[in-house]
Amino acid sequence: MYQLGIVKRHITRADPAAVEALSRFGVATVHEAMGRVGLMQPYMRPIYGGAHLCGTAVTVLLHPGDNWMMHVVAEQIRPGDVVVAAVTAECTDGFFGDLLATSFRAQGAKGLVIDAGVRDVKDLTAMQFPVWSKAISAKGTIKATLGSVNVPVVCAGALVNPGDVVLADDDGVVVVPAALAAQTAEAAAKREASEADKREKLAAGVLGLDMYNMRPALEKAGLKYID
Amino acid sequence: MYQLGIVKRHITRADPAAVEALSRFGVATVHEAMGRVGLMQPYMRPIYGGAHLCGTAVTVLLHPGDNWMMHVVAEQIRPGDVVVAAVTAECTDGFFGDLLATSFRAQGAKGLVIDAGVRDVKDLTAMQFPVWSKAISAKGTIKATLGSVNVPVVCAGALVNPGDVVLADDDGVVVVPAALAAQTAEAAAKREASEADKREKLAAGVLGLDMYNMRPALEKAGLKYID
Amino acid sequence: MYQLGIVKRHITRADPAAVEALSRFGVATVHEAMGRVGLMQPYMRPIYGGAHLCGTAVTVLLHPGDNWMMHVVAEQIRPGDVVVAAVTAECTDGFFGDLLATSFRAQGAKGLVIDAGVRDVKDLTAMQFPVWSKAISAKGTIKATLGSVNVPVVCAGALVNPGDVVLADDDGVVVVPAALAAQTAEAAAKREASEADKREKLAAGVLGLDMYNMRPALEKAGLKYID
Amino acid sequence: MYQLGIVKRHITRADPAAVEALSRFGVATVHEAMGRVGLMQPYMRPIYGGAHLCGTAVTVLLHPGDNWMMHVVAEQIRPGDVVVAAVTAECTDGFFGDLLATSFRAQGAKGLVIDAGVRDVKDLTAMQFPVWSKAISAKGTIKATLGSVNVPVVCAGALVNPGDVVLADDDGVVVVPAALAAQTAEAAAKREASEADKREKLAAGVLGLDMYNMRPALEKAGLKYID
Amino acid sequence: MYQLGIVKRHITRADPAAVEALSRFGVATVHEAMGRVGLMQPYMRPIYGGAHLCGTAVTVLLHPGDNWMMHVVAEQIRPGDVVVAAVTAECTDGFFGDLLATSFRAQGAKGLVIDAGVRDVKDLTAMQFPVWSKAISAKGTIKATLGSVNVPVVCAGALVNPGDVVLADDDGVVVVPAALAAQTAEAAAKREASEADKREKLAAGVLGLDMYNMRPALEKAGLKYID
Amino acid sequence: MYQLGIVKRHITRADPAAVEALSRFGVATVHEAMGRVGLMQPYMRPIYGGAHLCGTAVTVLLHPGDNWMMHVVAEQIRPGDVVVAAVTAECTDGFFGDLLATSFRAQGAKGLVIDAGVRDVKDLTAMQFPVWSKAISAKGTIKATLGSVNVPVVCAGALVNPGDVVLADDDGVVVVPAALAAQTAEAAAKREASEADKREKLAAGVLGLDMYNMRPALEKAGLKYID
Repeated sequence: MYQLGIVKRHITRADPAAVEALSRFGVATVHEAMGRVGLMQPYMRPIYGGAHLCGTAVTVLLHPGDNWMMHVVAEQIRPGDVVVAAVTAECTDGFFGDLLATSFRAQGAKGLVIDAGVRDVKDLTAMQFPVWSKAISAKGTIKATLGSVNVPVVCAGALVNPGDVVLADDDGVVVVPAALAAQTAEAAAKREASEADKREKLAAGVLGLDMYNMRPALEKAGLKYID
Repeated sequence: MYQLGIVKRHITRADPAAVEALSRFGVATVHEAMGRVGLMQPYMRPIYGGAHLCGTAVTVLLHPGDNWMMHVVAEQIRPGDVVVAAVTAECTDGFFGDLLATSFRAQGAKGLVIDAGVRDVKDLTAMQFPVWSKAISAKGTIKATLGSVNVPVVCAGALVNPGDVVLADDDGVVVVPAALAAQTAEAAAKREASEADKREKLAAGVLGLDMYNMRPALEKAGLKYID
Repeated sequence: MYQLGIVKRHITRADPAAVEALSRFGVATVHEAMGRVGLMQPYMRPIYGGAHLCGTAVTVLLHPGDNWMMHVVAEQIRPGDVVVAAVTAECTDGFFGDLLATSFRAQGAKGLVIDAGVRDVKDLTAMQFPVWSKAISAKGTIKATLGSVNVPVVCAGALVNPGDVVLADDDGVVVVPAALAAQTAEAAAKREASEADKREKLAAGVLGLDMYNMRPALEKAGLKYID
Repeated sequence: MYQLGIVKRHITRADPAAVEALSRFGVATVHEAMGRVGLMQPYMRPIYGGAHLCGTAVTVLLHPGDNWMMHVVAEQIRPGDVVVAAVTAECTDGFFGDLLATSFRAQGAKGLVIDAGVRDVKDLTAMQFPVWSKAISAKGTIKATLGSVNVPVVCAGALVNPGDVVLADDDGVVVVPAALAAQTAEAAAKREASEADKREKLAAGVLGLDMYNMRPALEKAGLKYID
Repeated sequence: MYQLGIVKRHITRADPAAVEALSRFGVATVHEAMGRVGLMQPYMRPIYGGAHLCGTAVTVLLHPGDNWMMHVVAEQIRPGDVVVAAVTAECTDGFFGDLLATSFRAQGAKGLVIDAGVRDVKDLTAMQFPVWSKAISAKGTIKATLGSVNVPVVCAGALVNPGDVVLADDDGVVVVPAALAAQTAEAAAKREASEADKREKLAAGVLGLDMYNMRPALEKAGLKYID
Repeated sequence: MYQLGIVKRHITRADPAAVEALSRFGVATVHEAMGRVGLMQPYMRPIYGGAHLCGTAVTVLLHPGDNWMMHVVAEQIRPGDVVVAAVTAECTDGFFGDLLATSFRAQGAKGLVIDAGVRDVKDLTAMQFPVWSKAISAKGTIKATLGSVNVPVVCAGALVNPGDVVLADDDGVVVVPAALAAQTAEAAAKREASEADKREKLAAGVLGLDMYNMRPALEKAGLKYID
C-alpha cells in the first residue's frame, strides 16, 4: 500500500482465458460466485447506462486534486487493461477527460474505474469509453505530486492488486483476484446455469417458497400466517 | 408497526376504480391534492427514466442484508399490487433482482418500491419492471431472519398500510391511504383541470403575478422595486 | 447579499457577443480558462442528459419551502436569460415545475439553475426546458415569504451576480462574471485550439509523458521505475 | 397520517407505571426487547452527551422552514410528555430554541425529539433541556402554514402515535407503542437481568464462543481454523 | 471572486465598536437581526463545545489538498481578525494544525473558519484556539498552487468579503457585512431585549399562542381542535 | 481479501518496541512520516473525546447486520491488540456494546476500530474502552453468517493486515504496516523534533513565509501583492 513515487513495470495479469470467461457474466453473478465479497461501494456509477467492462487492472494512486500520475499510468497500459484509480483522500475533482481517454484507448485500455470525479462526460459517452466514477465534476487538477503506479490500492472500499480482473456493469464494480479468476468464472457459470431453470419456473407461477423449499425453515423460525 | 414473524393474508385494498382514477395523475399532482403530505424521501429514484406505477400496496418488513421475506411476500401478491419493502435499519444491499422480478410479475405485481438496494438493473430495464429504490448494488443478501408481511411499514419516511395506493413516477413516490383514494382522485382531477387553462395563459405571456393576483399581497408584505 | 424584499429591475447583462462566444465551449474548458474557479458544486445535475445552457443570470433568493419569488423573478426575465435560484438554507423541495417553466420560457428564459429541488421532470424533459438542480422532488411549496430578485446570490457554492454568464452542460455549471466574459471566451478558444492537435497525437499513441515533456520533472521529483 | 390543520386534544397516554419501568433501561435494551424494531435513524443525536429521556409522546407535524405548530403543540403538553416533531420534507432549519424550551418545560415537557434542526444549544445545555435532533442550525423559521398536533407521524423513520413511549439516550431514540409498554418493560428487565451474569463471566475471561455455546454452530457453518 | 494569485494588503475592516457590540450576541440572534440571511451551512461545526468567536474577516482561497496560501494569509492578519478559508472544490483534508494556530495567534488572530478539514484538534483544544470546520482529518496537504488572500470568497455557502464581521458559536457561523455591522448590532440588541420579558412569561406558563396572539390567525387559517 | 469462513490463528505482530515507539505520536505526525498515506476516512470518529489508541491489529470481516464473528475474533485477541472490524457492505447497525467490550478487554484488547455502528456508548465511555466507529446505533445484529478473522481487510478505505500497527486519536485512525513500524517511528520522531523549534519561532511572531523561505517560490509562481 505504502509505496509512493514508484512505477512497477512488470505485473502479472490474470489469465486471458479467465478474463474472457468472466466477461460473459454480470457483476452480481460474479460477486456471488466469490462468496459475496469483492464489490466496490455502490456510489461508484457508470457515466452512461448499459456500459460493460471487463479487463485486467493497472492501478494508480493519486493525491487529491492532482492527476499527474494519470499520465504516468498511461505508459503502463497494455491492450485489455482497465485503469483503476484510487486517491489518498476523498476528492470529487475531475481527474480525467476526453484527452486522457483518447490516450488510454490508444494504449489499449478498455475503460476506467476511479474513486473520484471525471469530466467531458458528453465526449466520453460519444467515444463510448466506459467509466465508473464517484462523481462528475468539471473541476480541473494540477500536476505536482508523486503517487504510484501498479501498487496495490484501495478503490471505493475494495482492494485492487495490479493484474486483478475488474468487472463492471450497471450494478457496480467487482474485483476478482488474478489467482481466483478461473475458478470464479467456473462458479459463475454454474450459478448462471441454475438460474435459467429457476427463471422459467418462477415465470410459470411457481413460488420461491416452494422452489427453494423454504416453508419448513420459515415455520421452524416461527413465521405465523394470520387473517 | 412492531409485529415480527407475521404474514397477514387478507388485507383491504383500495377501491379499484379509485386506483384506476389515481393512475391518470402524476405524483406531484396527487401529493398536492392530499395537502402536500404522503411523499417518500426524494432519495427514492426509478431505476430507469419514464417509469410510471400505480397499484395497491402489499408490504414487507426486512432486516438489513436479509431478503428472506421477499419470497414470503411474493405469495401474497394479487394482480395490480405494488410491493413496498421497508428495512429495520439503513441498508443499500441488493435485495431484489431479475429472478424475484420474474416471480413478482408472475403473481401479478406491477412493480416494487424498496427503501434499500436492487440489482440486475439491466435485466429489470429490459423487462420493463419498474422499481423505485434507494440504491443500486450488486451486494447479495442472506435468508436467515423473519420480518413481516402486510403490516404497516415506514418506507423512505412515509407510512404505508397494506392496501394503500402507491403512485410513482420520475418525480418520486406518493402514498394515498386506501380510505382517501377516491376523494384524492377527485381533488387531483380538479387541480389538473385548472392547470390546462393556466398553462395556456402563461404560455401566452401572462405573468403568474397577475394570473394569481399576487401583486397586492407582495406589496403588503413590503416588496420593493428598485432600479 | 443581504437585501431581502427587493427586486432590482435594471441589471447590466454581459455582452451578447461574449455570451454567444462562450456558448460554444464546454463547462470544463471555460472553468479552466478562468483559472479553475467559478464552478458550482458537483451535486448540481441536469434533469436530462445532453442538455446545454448558456445565458445571462437573473437571480432570485428564496426561503426553504417557499417559491413565491419565482413568480416575481419571472417578470424580470429578458430573452436569453437563465434564472439562477438560491435558497437561504438547505432544501430539496420542488420549487419549480412545468407551469413555471411555461411561464419562464414565454418570457424568454433559456433554462434554470436551482440549488434545491424541481418536479414535473417528465414534462420538463418533453418541453426540453433545461434545468440543473440539487434534487428532484414532488414536494410542493408555499407562497408566504419575501426573498429578493437580482441581488448577488450564492448558488451551490458559487457567487452569481445578476448579468453574469451562466454556462451548464453534463459536466456541471460554471459562472463567468460579466466583466470577464469576453476575455474568458478568448482564453477558452485558445485552450480548445490547442486541444485538437493534442488529441490527434494522443490518438496516434504519443504519450502525455512525452507530449508534455513530463519525464524530467517526474524524475526530479523522485519517481522510480521498478520491475 | 394525512390530517392537516388538526389538533387532537385528548390522547391516550401509555400507562405511567410502564413509562416509569421503561425509563430504567437504555435504548439498546428496549429496542432488543421489542424484537429489534422501533428505532429512529442513527442520524438523530443528542445535543449534549449523557442525556436521558423517557416520556409519553405528543406529536407535531411541521412543514419545512415553518415552526408555527410548535406553539400549538405547547398547549397540548402534559407533565411527563416528550414532544416529537416531524417535518413533511427534509429540513435542517432551527425550529426550536431556548424560548420554546422554556415554554415546553413550563408546560411539563421532559424534552424534544425533532427530525430537523434546533438552535440555542448552549442555552439548552445550560437548562439541561434534552433534545435529540437531526441538525444544529441557527436558521430561523416562519409562522405561516398549518400542520397538525397529536396525529400519527413518521419521525426519523419511526412511526410515532400520540401517547407512545419515547425513550432516548446516547445510543439514539426508540419508540414503544403505548399498548406494548408494560410487556416491553418486562422483556427488557429479563434481558438486563441475564446480562449481569454474562458480564461477570466475560470479564473473568470466559469467551462468548463458550458461554453462548457457539462452537458447534460455527463448525457446522463451515468455519475453519488455520495456522 | 475570480482573482487568483493575488494578496490584497489593505482592507477595510468593520468598525471595532460594531464588532465589539456584535460579539455580545449569539449567532441565532444576529442572523435574525439581519433578516434570516448570512448563515454558513450547518455542517460547519466547532472543534470543541462552548467556543465563541467574533472578529473581522481576512479571507483566503485555497485549492483542494494545498495549504500554501495559509502561510500567505498569516502575514495579513491584524489583531482581532478571524481567518476565513474557502476551497475551490470540496475537500476534507487537514489544512490547519497546531503550528499554523500558533502562528495565527501570534499575529493576532482570534480563530479560524474553514470549509475543509483541520487536524491536531487535541492541541487546538488545549490552546483554546477556536475553529469551525467541515471535517476533522489528519490528511496532510501540499504547497504547490496559488490561491488568493483578501478577495471575496464563498465559504460554506456564505459570501465573505474581507473586513466583514464573522460571528460563530455552538449554533454555527454568521457573516455580517462590514457596512451593516452597526445597524445589525442595534437590531440584535432590540431583539434580545424583547426576549428577556418573553422568557419570563413563558416560564410562568403563558403560552406563545396567547403571548404572540396567534389564535385568531390560526383559526383563520382553518386550524381545528378535535377530541 | 476473499477468504470467508477462515480464522487465522497465528499472525505476525509488529515489533513491540516499534508499537511502543509509535504510541508516543499523534495520528497526523505518523501519517506524515509515512508519506501521507495509510489514513482511514475521516468519518471514523472516536465515541468520546481525548481517546488515544495504539496496538497491533487483529482483523475481522463481518457481513451487514451480523456480528457473529465478533465472538470468534475475541478468542484471537492477545494483550496489546486492537480489533479492526470491516463489513462487506455499508452498515450502521450496532455490532458492538458493553458486553463485547468486557470480553475484548478481558482478552487484552486495547480498543476497537469498526467501519460500522456501536452501541452502549455511555457504558463504553464509563469503561474508558476506546472505539472509533462510523456510527452510533442501538440497532442489534444477528448471528447467522460466517465472515473471517485475521485476513487482510479494507476498513474505512484503508487496507489492514493482521499484525499491522493501528494508531488512533482525535484526528482519526492511521495504519502502519508491521514491516514499516520501526522506520515510521523514527521518521515520526525526527518530524516531531523539528516541530518544537518551529513552534517557538512561530509563537514569537516569525512568519512561516520566512521560516520556510517561501517568498521566492511564491514570487516565481506569480503571487502579486496589491493595495
